[in-house]
Amino acid sequence: MLRRKVLPYQQPRAAQAAKASLEEEENGTVAIATPDGYRALTDATLAPYLAGLPAIQARLGGSPEGWKVIEVGDGNLNLVFIVEGPRGDLCVKQALPYVRLVGESWPLGLKRAWFEHRAAVIQSRHAPEQIPEVLHYDEQLYLIAMARCHPHVIMRRGMIEGIVYPGFAAHIAEYLAATLYFTSDMALPAAEKKELIAAFCGNTELCKITEDLIFTDPYLICDRNRWTSPQLDDEAAAIRGDDALKRAVSALKLKFLSEAQALLHGDLHTGSIMVTEGDTKVIDPEFAFVGPMGFDVGKLLGNLLMSFFSQQGHEQARGERDGYRRWILATVEEVWTRFERRFRELWTAYPTGDAYPRSLFEGQAGREALRTAQTGHLQRLYRDALGFAGCAMIRRTLGLAHNIDMEWIEDPDRRAACERRNLRLARELLLHPARFDAIGQVTARAAEIEAAAGAGA
Amino acid sequence: MLRRKVLPYQQPRAAQAAKASLEEEENGTVAIATPDGYRALTDATLAPYLAGLPAIQARLGGSPEGWKVIEVGDGNLNLVFIVEGPRGDLCVKQALPYVRLVGESWPLGLKRAWFEHRAAVIQSRHAPEQIPEVLHYDEQLYLIAMARCHPHVIMRRGMIEGIVYPGFAAHIAEYLAATLYFTSDMALPAAEKKELIAAFCGNTELCKITEDLIFTDPYLICDRNRWTSPQLDDEAAAIRGDDALKRAVSALKLKFLSEAQALLHGDLHTGSIMVTEGDTKVIDPEFAFVGPMGFDVGKLLGNLLMSFFSQQGHEQARGERDGYRRWILATVEEVWTRFERRFRELWTAYPTGDAYPRSLFEGQAGREALRTAQTGHLQRLYRDALGFAGCAMIRRTLGLAHNIDMEWIEDPDRRAACERRNLRLARELLLHPARFDAIGQVTARAAEIEAAAGAGA
Repeated sequence: MLRRKVLPYQQPRAAQAAKASLEEEENGTVAIATPDGYRALTDATLAPYLAGLPAIQARLGGSPEGWKVIEVGDGNLNLVFIVEGPRGDLCVKQALPYVRLVGESWPLGLKRAWFEHRAAVIQSRHAPEQIPEVLHYDEQLYLIAMARCHPHVIMRRGMIEGIVYPGFAAHIAEYLAATLYFTSDMALPAAEKKELIAAFCGNTELCKITEDLIFTDPYLICDRNRWTSPQLDDEAAAIRGDDALKRAVSALKLKFLSEAQALLHGDLHTGSIMVTEGDTKVIDPEFAFVGPMGFDVGKLLGNLLMSFFSQQGHEQARGERDGYRRWILATVEEVWTRFERRFRELWTAYPTGDAYPRSLFEGQAGREALRTAQTGHLQRLYRDALGFAGCAMIRRTLGLAHNIDMEWIEDPDRRAACERRNLRLARELLLHPARFDAIGQVTARAAEIEAAAGAGA
Repeated sequence: MLRRKVLPYQQPRAAQAAKASLEEEENGTVAIATPDGYRALTDATLAPYLAGLPAIQARLGGSPEGWKVIEVGDGNLNLVFIVEGPRGDLCVKQALPYVRLVGESWPLGLKRAWFEHRAAVIQSRHAPEQIPEVLHYDEQLYLIAMARCHPHVIMRRGMIEGIVYPGFAAHIAEYLAATLYFTSDMALPAAEKKELIAAFCGNTELCKITEDLIFTDPYLICDRNRWTSPQLDDEAAAIRGDDALKRAVSALKLKFLSEAQALLHGDLHTGSIMVTEGDTKVIDPEFAFVGPMGFDVGKLLGNLLMSFFSQQGHEQARGERDGYRRWILATVEEVWTRFERRFRELWTAYPTGDAYPRSLFEGQAGREALRTAQTGHLQRLYRDALGFAGCAMIRRTLGLAHNIDMEWIEDPDRRAACERRNLRLARELLLHPARFDAIGQVTARAAEIEAAAGAGA
């Protein structure tokens, strides 16, 4: 077994410089050793490549000279191209052998594209409506071609603008319930489940990013951390000194490391979701691995709650976003409530796995016993989810990667006030889970924290 | 992913017949297709094979014609040979492509020898005193040569005779603490841990035996089950009808399927332990996989408790084994108490893994927080262990495989009385874990159940 070196994460300022130097090199050559046959594609080389794939050629129509190719990657890791032809369009994502945001000083394995592709294929079987159709995977180029989400926008951006997505809660609850249930031991025979675990065990490099950035760094003095300073210096210090919090977060980290419950998306926040008013698509499952179900659910809920606390920073007039805030909290409740109901329905309808075998829970009494077992299971999942939500809310305020929900609030005092409320709920979720036995208690407390701030301001 | 067929388990009587037909075939040819280069060795072909291995030849001394080879396999699955030469001796274990106890009608993958060898090598690093030294592994023959445990006996047989093993609790607690701790996320970096998980994910065929025989069959009407009948017919029916029990057992099965905490032995009962008064060796880790720590601990405790309840059946005069019973209960307590202390010590001394990272728990307050976390972790492990103990005690009374502790009590009424007391404690462990917050409450309750039986008899 190999002992891995600590990744040379860098600070954002260094990242900006690295990004500049990367751009100078965007001619398809990279200095990091890559497997034979790998080359980073460019606006110029992508179209001829795609023209060689008959199904893609047919989808786009016409000839490659007429295709419009734009590199749109605004994420941190990869190249992303939109390609438009006379007949249709598509999206191409290619892994680079390093973290794009930082540059070659932070190498990152190309194989993440393989994991992303595998996860998308598996999840598509269970939640086809919520995953962009996979059109092609190239093993040598670590490249995925998929249907373009159009006219969708990244949900986080829509929420910053205060846009309501009426179908979102139902869509995402279906996605969560189906992808988590059907890859769990309740649905899969043990041998299939173990194959799934083994297949994704190799995605440790991306898991390690989560382990470090979410569960460790924000609780330490660490060069990679940043926060609105000096406004939140006291909060950051208090969190670093809170031993009960560090215990709670570490218990969740151990769950993340060892509980192989279901195939997770692994990075399910509002930046990994593309929406219109009527449709919801989940993208970017490159952090996928078999882990605790509560992680996907909680990361999403935490990001919705962060958006809630950020809204004050985007108001032109106080109270302007009251209605939107109510919609976000209703959405938090609805996501959980629908997820729980759907997960239970799937479990009852498809008890095809080796856990809780159908043969043990037959007849009226058996069905009641199974319902009791489901309730217990979902309570534990809910408890985990609240903990993971708290972790997500803290790391995006005090760690390396922040959310534009907060970052785009220009006045640092105003931003810090929003972030402080966010941290307050996060700590309560982690330290006092017994206060939040029902999802309505979470939203009520969020509203209470927000209202107290309004009154005091 | 493959969907596996249910294994054609057979009943013991069929097994006897199959064993006879197997013996007729013990000329090295088997009808099941095997990989190139595989052949089952015999008393006659083993010595020439070993003579080709210089280190083995040197260990045994002399020439192969003078070596004494005896096939001694009394287990259910494999060929086991003892080889004695003029200078030294050793033990050779070879996998057959089927379950030896049953015959070719129950095929079983040869690769279990690979898992056994890997597990023995890994565990040897952490508990060298408790594992027979591995001398050689042959990948083509699925054969392990190891140091012979001599003059050790299988612990279960010694306990049937009422023999005290004064060093046992200390040895096995060290084995459990070291093998479980050092393969956990508290000791291993995540990438190494994931490699370990992946390496053992392939051992599903043996895990499936556990999943079926321990967590499923005894709670169903199933051809593979057997019990002392008609004496225990009421108990068997009551257990099949106990929905709360089935829920508790199914929750433990889910843990077994999904909680990848540490590399387990996977079958740690008193039949997998060889002892003298001064030494303890653990053998047969072919069921090894990365699972919940409480499974190894609990299976062992459950088997000790079964031995406790079986003692009355081996008494010539009532009360003759009172002292031995006290020793068993003291051993149950000591195994847990020493394990818990040692696990905590190792955690404190070697916080080298990614869970509960050292950097988060520095200074006096950090050390105290870590102690609190350790206490919580060990409480959960203890709770799991009691549940798994209960499962082991039930399956060995109502399922396919029984223990000679009970089987060797010839009078069925007497045997059934012992088994009934065993089932009583097992059910309480599963249904009322809150009554057993300390290990002393388990042993006190065992003594109480035993005493009530004595008074009533």
